[in-house]
Amino acid sequence: MFKRKTKAFVLWFTGLPCSGKSTLADMVYDFLMKKDHKVERLDGDTVRTVFPETGFTKEERDEHIKRVGYLASMLEKNGIIVVSSFVSPYEESREFVRGLCRNFIEVYVSTSAEECEKRDVKGMYKKAREGEIENFTGINDPYEIPRNPDIVIDAEKEPAEESFRKIKKHMRRYM
Amino acid sequence: MFKRKTKAFVLWFTGLPCSGKSTLADMVYDFLMKKDHKVERLDGDTVRTVFPETGFTKEERDEHIKRVGYLASMLEKNGIIVVSSFVSPYEESREFVRGLCRNFIEVYVSTSAEECEKRDVKGMYKKAREGEIENFTGINDPYEIPRNPDIVIDAEKEPAEESFRKIKKHMRRYM
Repeated sequence: MFKRKTKAFVLWFTGLPCSGKSTLADMVYDFLMKKDHKVERLDGDTVRTVFPETGFTKEERDEHIKRVGYLASMLEKNGIIVVSSFVSPYEESREFVRGLCRNFIEVYVSTSAEECEKRDVKGMYKKAREGEIENFTGINDPYEIPRNPDIVIDAEKEPAEESFRKIKKHMRRYM
Repeated sequence: MFKRKTKAFVLWFTGLPCSGKSTLADMVYDFLMKKDHKVERLDGDTVRTVFPETGFTKEERDEHIKRVGYLASMLEKNGIIVVSSFVSPYEESREFVRGLCRNFIEVYVSTSAEECEKRDVKGMYKKAREGEIENFTGINDPYEIPRNPDIVIDAEKEPAEESFRKIKKHMRRYM
């Protein structure tokens, strides 16, 4: 049976903390794994566990995202699909990563700060509001809305299945 | 015909600037490419071109090597052989990388500072001696000799072919 060769790509979820990025990214990752694709999952929290010294100032965030983007591009170059979820609040560093990758799909999870705070089981938004956490995106640090995202996910209004379907449709170009 | 499955590994060249790391690493990379292995080449100078903001203090070097090591380990995990060449002067960060990888082969290129300076066509050693370059390993910054390298290359006494043969012999465990 003829099987078309999949092109690797980088699916890059960006959005506020607790917007639903990781949940969706996990769904996509599981789907691709079950289909026997070569796929790697990169997540902000996980990567920061390996590098606890990385801070949250604009400069540190930019450098962090560029480095993680380089990692994603190297995996992609070697035929591995990458499913990434990072707050990645700055347009410039997201565009830097797009430039490194061959097939970069930017997925903007557009959940509002109010809704994100409701979903925040760890109470980080509250702590940021009370000044206990500095440089917290959405409260005391900016989030630059993507200018030309490839996919926009409205996790407040659309059910997860619908978001997932939109992403699958887009991925089909490469599979 | 039966072909044994190659296990991925990370071949990590460490040594002073101009010790001959990159030349040897290039030879190994070309050899593996010709044999149709999946292989990626990581080199200090190349990576720093992408991230020009990375400095040369102990702290910055340590973080840099750990991040590059993470990249190497992710590639290895996905079945890609990695051929790396970095001065990587500190034992702790090299051992951190060893811990991240499954099959880590540390290759210590033991060329002396005197010999390295003779080979230094860009005159960096001279500039470091004259104080024009700070934190230059071998002159005004330390190099910690690997305690338990997997391979030691004496590029001063042995011909490149002999060094190459030693490395090939070691790689055979995984191929």
